[in-house]
Amino acid sequence: MIDYRSDNTGRAAPQILEALIRANHGTALGYGGDQWTASLQLRFSELFETSVSVFPVATGTAANALALAALGPSWGIVYCSEVAHINTSEANATGFFGSGIKLALVAGEHGKIGADPLAEALAGISPGQLHRGQPTAVSLTEATDLGAVYRLDEIRAIAEVAKRRGLKLHMDGARFANAVARLGCSPADLTWRADIDVMSFGATKNGGALCDAIVVFSPSIADGLAVQLRRAGQVWSKMRFASAQLIAYIEDGLWLEMARASNAVAARIAAGLCELPAARLLAPVEANEIFLELPGAVMDALEADGFQFYRRTKTLARFVCRFDTTEAEADGLVAALRRHLGAARAAD
Amino acid sequence: MIDYRSDNTGRAAPQILEALIRANHGTALGYGGDQWTASLQLRFSELFETSVSVFPVATGTAANALALAALGPSWGIVYCSEVAHINTSEANATGFFGSGIKLALVAGEHGKIGADPLAEALAGISPGQLHRGQPTAVSLTEATDLGAVYRLDEIRAIAEVAKRRGLKLHMDGARFANAVARLGCSPADLTWRADIDVMSFGATKNGGALCDAIVVFSPSIADGLAVQLRRAGQVWSKMRFASAQLIAYIEDGLWLEMARASNAVAARIAAGLCELPAARLLAPVEANEIFLELPGAVMDALEADGFQFYRRTKTLARFVCRFDTTEAEADGLVAALRRHLGAARAAD
Amino acid sequence: MIDYRSDNTGRAAPQILEALIRANHGTALGYGGDQWTASLQLRFSELFETSVSVFPVATGTAANALALAALGPSWGIVYCSEVAHINTSEANATGFFGSGIKLALVAGEHGKIGADPLAEALAGISPGQLHRGQPTAVSLTEATDLGAVYRLDEIRAIAEVAKRRGLKLHMDGARFANAVARLGCSPADLTWRADIDVMSFGATKNGGALCDAIVVFSPSIADGLAVQLRRAGQVWSKMRFASAQLIAYIEDGLWLEMARASNAVAARIAAGLCELPAARLLAPVEANEIFLELPGAVMDALEADGFQFYRRTKTLARFVCRFDTTEAEADGLVAALRRHLGAARAAD
Amino acid sequence: MIDYRSDNTGRAAPQILEALIRANHGTALGYGGDQWTASLQLRFSELFETSVSVFPVATGTAANALALAALGPSWGIVYCSEVAHINTSEANATGFFGSGIKLALVAGEHGKIGADPLAEALAGISPGQLHRGQPTAVSLTEATDLGAVYRLDEIRAIAEVAKRRGLKLHMDGARFANAVARLGCSPADLTWRADIDVMSFGATKNGGALCDAIVVFSPSIADGLAVQLRRAGQVWSKMRFASAQLIAYIEDGLWLEMARASNAVAARIAAGLCELPAARLLAPVEANEIFLELPGAVMDALEADGFQFYRRTKTLARFVCRFDTTEAEADGLVAALRRHLGAARAAD
Repeated sequence: MIDYRSDNTGRAAPQILEALIRANHGTALGYGGDQWTASLQLRFSELFETSVSVFPVATGTAANALALAALGPSWGIVYCSEVAHINTSEANATGFFGSGIKLALVAGEHGKIGADPLAEALAGISPGQLHRGQPTAVSLTEATDLGAVYRLDEIRAIAEVAKRRGLKLHMDGARFANAVARLGCSPADLTWRADIDVMSFGATKNGGALCDAIVVFSPSIADGLAVQLRRAGQVWSKMRFASAQLIAYIEDGLWLEMARASNAVAARIAAGLCELPAARLLAPVEANEIFLELPGAVMDALEADGFQFYRRTKTLARFVCRFDTTEAEADGLVAALRRHLGAARAAD
Repeated sequence: MIDYRSDNTGRAAPQILEALIRANHGTALGYGGDQWTASLQLRFSELFETSVSVFPVATGTAANALALAALGPSWGIVYCSEVAHINTSEANATGFFGSGIKLALVAGEHGKIGADPLAEALAGISPGQLHRGQPTAVSLTEATDLGAVYRLDEIRAIAEVAKRRGLKLHMDGARFANAVARLGCSPADLTWRADIDVMSFGATKNGGALCDAIVVFSPSIADGLAVQLRRAGQVWSKMRFASAQLIAYIEDGLWLEMARASNAVAARIAAGLCELPAARLLAPVEANEIFLELPGAVMDALEADGFQFYRRTKTLARFVCRFDTTEAEADGLVAALRRHLGAARAAD
Repeated sequence: MIDYRSDNTGRAAPQILEALIRANHGTALGYGGDQWTASLQLRFSELFETSVSVFPVATGTAANALALAALGPSWGIVYCSEVAHINTSEANATGFFGSGIKLALVAGEHGKIGADPLAEALAGISPGQLHRGQPTAVSLTEATDLGAVYRLDEIRAIAEVAKRRGLKLHMDGARFANAVARLGCSPADLTWRADIDVMSFGATKNGGALCDAIVVFSPSIADGLAVQLRRAGQVWSKMRFASAQLIAYIEDGLWLEMARASNAVAARIAAGLCELPAARLLAPVEANEIFLELPGAVMDALEADGFQFYRRTKTLARFVCRFDTTEAEADGLVAALRRHLGAARAAD
Repeated sequence: MIDYRSDNTGRAAPQILEALIRANHGTALGYGGDQWTASLQLRFSELFETSVSVFPVATGTAANALALAALGPSWGIVYCSEVAHINTSEANATGFFGSGIKLALVAGEHGKIGADPLAEALAGISPGQLHRGQPTAVSLTEATDLGAVYRLDEIRAIAEVAKRRGLKLHMDGARFANAVARLGCSPADLTWRADIDVMSFGATKNGGALCDAIVVFSPSIADGLAVQLRRAGQVWSKMRFASAQLIAYIEDGLWLEMARASNAVAARIAAGLCELPAARLLAPVEANEIFLELPGAVMDALEADGFQFYRRTKTLARFVCRFDTTEAEADGLVAALRRHLGAARAAD
């Protein structure tokens, strides 16, 4: 079996689990009062070239929902893409943690939202208007849920629209490493320098094990968030074992190394697809995900060959590369697609 | 420094972290669709001698609040002890996850609630009465937050009162292992055979690392809870790393071995205190916690000696034993108390 | 000034306010324990030809949100039209009272949802799937927010799809009277006989003053709803003054008489528009609302003439008829439209 | 039957219902955009000698819960008396509208909270502490739920403690008129001059019909509250009929006249009780409520005589006077008590 189902089906980087073992000595104050969590603040502040607050959390859903709930009142409206994970896959966690916060969908390409459609949506709600709630935040997914990556200028254009109206900016960075690796920019450029106030910093999908993090760039958000996280059951009493994972994740550039590896193997598949005009990509392959329009029979044949992947619709397949997906596995997928698409065409 | 601050300041059992490393091979379906999580259901069903649903969660706060929210409507009243962790230390997580569920405090000794005070409290609210909300559940902490342990007959008496009124029963088992070790009964006897519907199964305080669990005995609760947990950001995508910890925790009786160790060292301290009439215990030492009335000067002197512990009030100190607290550390504490209490008495 | 802004800008029927005065004698038990509220249950049960529970509430928003929250768990999904009042105009009250309930939009014509698009939307979420929440209810607006009216067979088709999946059915009947008047059917036919479980029974827009009601057809919903309403601050202590209004509203068919009047005057305007091909209706005029595509200059001219109405977009105007809108006012509007549209055409 | 059950069993002042009828002419913008609601702001600003925002709401429960939810985050703690209506009788509406806000009970006499116990309670929670939530507000009930009235210096002492810690102050003024009438002070002195930030302004219990109000003294609270009220279903579309009631309520001092009447008749009963040493008052009679310790047999006898009242416990009866309770009714109650208490004593 060759597994392209998701980046969460994979192993953790051994370095991350070894860090757990190394942290297992002596006693340490609970709930984040330990030296690993203190160190985590420093390391991430270095990484982001500014003083940040880092809150380890169990999952990306917790990171997204609690970060968004911290950005505005419960009658707020959060703007996002229709395919955003917060809209499609988190059982309305944002609405729950936000006590009624509503998501409003904004059009855009390849899982992005567009600055112009955002401006239009905002124009439809006057400040002080009671009937619809009030716009409070925008959430961008970087890389997007369709495997594309916002360019810096695209984010800045959205930020400009949002800030003009006083909105806060959240980045869902479940695949932030893949975006940084793709763009070759600094984490700072892609976040606070582009006016992002708070982000969900993903690790799990990119070789992590049991935690992601909320990274806060606007200090005013952090205090309340700390209490809210405690109440949400997201503050481990033995926090050192979470903080140690996140430190190991960014140590010596491990996170970017893994993201580069999964990006590269996805790119290799995408390159192979170029020669297969019958394989239609839904979005450019800029990170580690490939969305491919395929006849159902071809999907059946791939599965018979031992490939695992998700069928998003009857004719849309998703293939996700992990940091340890091999070039041979990539070439195997391309070869199988060539074979089955050729057969499908011949059958037409 | 000798650390008696909490059982969450300590190390994890090495076996639990090693299980993480052993689980780190191959790919596995996300969000609990893996073989470790399947195995976890079987192992816990064996342990409890009945078919149970086990949901790993990040923290005891999550376990308590989500379990209680699953037991009744948002206008429900949950009865608990005034010193219950859910009342004192979870930032009203139950009220939050339960969308307004209210805790009502019931009198009792040593962190327990009494069956009679419970019956009285329930008698004060007629079924169908609108003004106060409606009783829906009782939460017992076993072992209690003052270090005592409910006997089986005490739990059954409470359960009888609760069930007569149609209430559900929750057990906060943050220190369940210590209670089972103390009573020498089976996990089944202490839970579903005593009419408990759902429990928070603690591991962290007893040598665990990054997860506790909700164990459901009443199947009707499990379906909704699964969605609620997903929405609460408590379902790890790489769930195998949580399930593997919990499997290792109960494997070969590790959990009870650790609980027996921390109970024994607490009992050793308690025995030493018998000879010190000036040391007044707040509650019998039946698990791994010791609550001691002490003059402030004695607490100061202990700290100067290098003992770490929490001051609950100006004259109440809490000492918690961990699975790896040594007999020498216990004897050291008793000796220091003897010394300082003697001095304090002499100073009178 | 001739006011077509909304049916909530108008007067109350004098009979309704007189009923308040008649109810103002003697003492009466609070919170609905009075004879008027008891009588209300009987009168509405007669009206609907079945035993119903009637809960007076202050507003239609309260009726909708609390009724929907009573139909399923907080992780539920409620299906409705994009233009439904619950989606556009209630500041996400359903998400708030439902503690995170999410609205999912279903396509359809003229403010309706279609049975086929609903079936398709439901097919996209498997039972037990955790990531999206679970479908729990469908909300139909009758008459719709665009002034059309569901036919009985349309409602039954939707109900069939919903019931096959175990969903509950809610009707937002803010303009229920207008729909009943239009269809000439019985209230029973349009509700519980078509499988509606609970409805928001509007009075305010149709000559009411200070209350609408929730009417419950499925008894299992009523008990919890009663507590929830108390907690929501929707149970008046002097409930007699609310119940008396609702009794007067349906007494001797007053409600239908008023609805027929507003429908008739809207129909008179619509008939006049037939002769004005430049006036494009957004939806058939089947109740008391008229949505008209108009050039901005024509809207300006109408306002200069003293007509009041809402501009939904730059080219969409809404005109609402009240029970006391006169035929002369209708003819005045048609004449003005004829005049200004003629001028606009000439200017082309 | 002579009804002492509650001040909500009574009639409305005829002036208030007549105001509804007078307001029933012409059209008026919905949701508070009408001239009555504008006028209401002015009249109340005059009454309170400062610029206030007034939001009519359906019930006192809505007023309390929404005002308190506006004062702080959802992890906040609100301090109040154990017998406060928000704690005993509103089905935890504050916890619901506040998305998990918790009530913490503060000791005091006669339904008041004491400044010292409040200071002590606050000292127990350090700023920034995560485990318990954070103190955000204090709620005072004036007149109290046991019929006593805070003196100005008592309120100022509490306010000083609260403000030192940065807490907001809420007044539950369900019987505010009775307190003002008792103290003979100005509404301003009893509220914003004593540092109250927001109040629930009761009308229903004192001759009102269908609305109370939230009065906001701290402008920063008002904007968010307006959206929250809309979402809570507490903004009538035909708001004029609510605003007109509240204007009539304070017009020409009607509210104080009614409060003086109910206070006076309660005082007359209290004076009669002075001569009956067997009748023990639970609290001084300073407003319109009388809490009387009575043998069960005496309560039975009173009921047999046709007196209606509430039994709070087996030996505690509550008698409430309304604005239209007559002196003859008062004398009748005293005479009956004299008769039955004498008989009870003789039977000893």
